[in-house]
Amino acid sequence: MSDSDKGKVIECKAAVAWEANKPLVTETIRVDPPKEGEVRLKVVANALCHTDVYTLSGQDPEGLFPCILGHEAGAMVESVGPGVTSVQPGMYVIPCYTPQCKDAACIFCQSPKTNLCPKIRATQGRGVMPDGTSRFSTLDGKPIYHFMGCSTFAEYTVVAEISCAVVSEKAPLDKVCLFGCGVSTGLGAVLKTCAVEEGASVAVFGLGAVGLAVVQAAKIRKARRIFAVDTNPKKFEMAVQLGATDCLNPNDIPDKPIQQVIVEATTWGVDYSFDATGNVEVMRAALECAHRGWGVSCVIGVAASGKLIQTRPFQLITGRSWKGTAFGGWKSRTDVPDLVDQYMDGKLPIDHYVTHSFEGVSAINDAIHALHEGDCLRAVVSYFKQ
Amino acid sequence: MSDSDKGKVIECKAAVAWEANKPLVTETIRVDPPKEGEVRLKVVANALCHTDVYTLSGQDPEGLFPCILGHEAGAMVESVGPGVTSVQPGMYVIPCYTPQCKDAACIFCQSPKTNLCPKIRATQGRGVMPDGTSRFSTLDGKPIYHFMGCSTFAEYTVVAEISCAVVSEKAPLDKVCLFGCGVSTGLGAVLKTCAVEEGASVAVFGLGAVGLAVVQAAKIRKARRIFAVDTNPKKFEMAVQLGATDCLNPNDIPDKPIQQVIVEATTWGVDYSFDATGNVEVMRAALECAHRGWGVSCVIGVAASGKLIQTRPFQLITGRSWKGTAFGGWKSRTDVPDLVDQYMDGKLPIDHYVTHSFEGVSAINDAIHALHEGDCLRAVVSYFKQ
Repeated sequence: MSDSDKGKVIECKAAVAWEANKPLVTETIRVDPPKEGEVRLKVVANALCHTDVYTLSGQDPEGLFPCILGHEAGAMVESVGPGVTSVQPGMYVIPCYTPQCKDAACIFCQSPKTNLCPKIRATQGRGVMPDGTSRFSTLDGKPIYHFMGCSTFAEYTVVAEISCAVVSEKAPLDKVCLFGCGVSTGLGAVLKTCAVEEGASVAVFGLGAVGLAVVQAAKIRKARRIFAVDTNPKKFEMAVQLGATDCLNPNDIPDKPIQQVIVEATTWGVDYSFDATGNVEVMRAALECAHRGWGVSCVIGVAASGKLIQTRPFQLITGRSWKGTAFGGWKSRTDVPDLVDQYMDGKLPIDHYVTHSFEGVSAINDAIHALHEGDCLRAVVSYFKQ
Repeated sequence: MSDSDKGKVIECKAAVAWEANKPLVTETIRVDPPKEGEVRLKVVANALCHTDVYTLSGQDPEGLFPCILGHEAGAMVESVGPGVTSVQPGMYVIPCYTPQCKDAACIFCQSPKTNLCPKIRATQGRGVMPDGTSRFSTLDGKPIYHFMGCSTFAEYTVVAEISCAVVSEKAPLDKVCLFGCGVSTGLGAVLKTCAVEEGASVAVFGLGAVGLAVVQAAKIRKARRIFAVDTNPKKFEMAVQLGATDCLNPNDIPDKPIQQVIVEATTWGVDYSFDATGNVEVMRAALECAHRGWGVSCVIGVAASGKLIQTRPFQLITGRSWKGTAFGGWKSRTDVPDLVDQYMDGKLPIDHYVTHSFEGVSAINDAIHALHEGDCLRAVVSYFKQ
């Protein structure tokens, strides 16, 4: 890519989701130049997240087609639109589906309690850029929707400036792309949203990358006891490596609810519990194994549309709190660069989450296939050499 | 009552609940002397709480009959059992259904996060004293169950020492009895459990004594905006007197969920919401009108047996927390005396909650009748002149 592409349409490869529940199709598409407040990115590497697959499956009622999925990537700034000041061409960025506008008038960005900047929420949900239009189109001019403000299943994408977390120029993008969603979310649930303290007891349900990141963060916080729960015992080895003290397979204890098992093992339950499954029954179990008096249970997994969580209110009256986290509570542009720096300093290893690697946009279907296998944590597809 | 009663059985009047869903019967009963760690109280005044009525109705599956209900009272210590050190005959106490053992080994009493001391929970739930027996019996020797560790529908009762909050000897017991349950609970939900801060916005559902105490406490904390919600508009006058800024009757807005009304009125919802109805649908509304990003919703009301609260997990993922409170989070023996002192100093008026007054144990049925009327907050029955 040369300077001459600035301000021009780029033609590049993308894995297009033409319709629900069909394989992605690798196409040459057109990527418009960034408009005001926008940034065009060369996507170097992308990790697959279950949310991409969920939307592709058609179960997400808000899914729009055709679209370019993908939201966990490492990228390089190709060009910037008018008014963009915080990033420049050549910078490394992680596009974040949770933006951070930092406006003085944004009560969310100004609050230390949340990361849910709503600045571009409405248009992001409608699959378009903040001006209401798409930067993607087919070669014959048919528009293609954006996805989660990222759309990183393409060699080039356009995102809002406020979605760009600038990270170390030395960072390996095929690794730190993981900070774009799942791993950051699991880490943040523990470190930020729940602020787990030293000596606490923790339980995590679901040992995908998100749940394992919960284990890792609990260990960082010197949790005393870490229960790791999954119906797939293959996950336990890494859970133990990351710090789990007790691995439980609910299928091994068919006659007792898993929450009861954990309460009995701890007398009163765990100080913090986390759901990383998206299953509302598991969310209930996670709440109900939280400690009487002060246990906090945090929903991380995204449930299928229309599903409801439920419990007896007595569980709350007797001191449990039910909360949730989105992107681990991290303020994306402020905190993601710090996470990357911790990784670069060797304090926050994440390479172990990359269990599968592929090359080229057309391999994304292979990555999806890998993610459906039980032994995949993150499948990273590199589009370009860094 | 003379010194000569110490160590002897006392015969006195009590309003006995012989069976579910039948009026109380005023009987002469026998009250045994206190055993080790127990205190016998002369109950001076008792305020009726909805939980008494709920259990009497038979809807509480854990209700035991025959029993002596009542748990919101002001009393004087008549005598103490062996080993009792923290109270002495003549002291004024408020018996508290949430005890506070203060043992070094009690992780609940030692934690600043909770007031849920479980020391006598099991026997209290079975309607007996910690040694497994009752101190109440009929004149022909048939045992009568205790209730919530208090049983203040009797002129004399026996409670655990750890259930006794010693209060000012100048306190009018026919007023400060209210600190035994509902008013303390509503105040504590705001002041303690949620620690509402100055300038916050608040919504409370249900304007009985508990909900009005939420309004009062929110005003004490200088909440900026206080929504008071009830289907009975008679409640609004006092709500406004206590500090409510917006009164809402859901029946006046039949075509819109009340949570939507509040979210629209505040852009993003209220910082804190409280359910003081015990209705699980209202609990959901309370959660869903909490502020995106950081809203906290607190369940205060006790739901009917078997009822479940539910919501979409998205509500938690987008930053709302769901919690609950029991007895307002107050550590009973430490905090209730402080509340009474604040009342005595004129800083925490509560007389306005006493809308009905009666005399004599046999008037408790009249008090129950009054509580069922829409204009009753608290009906206080005085058994003795103070």
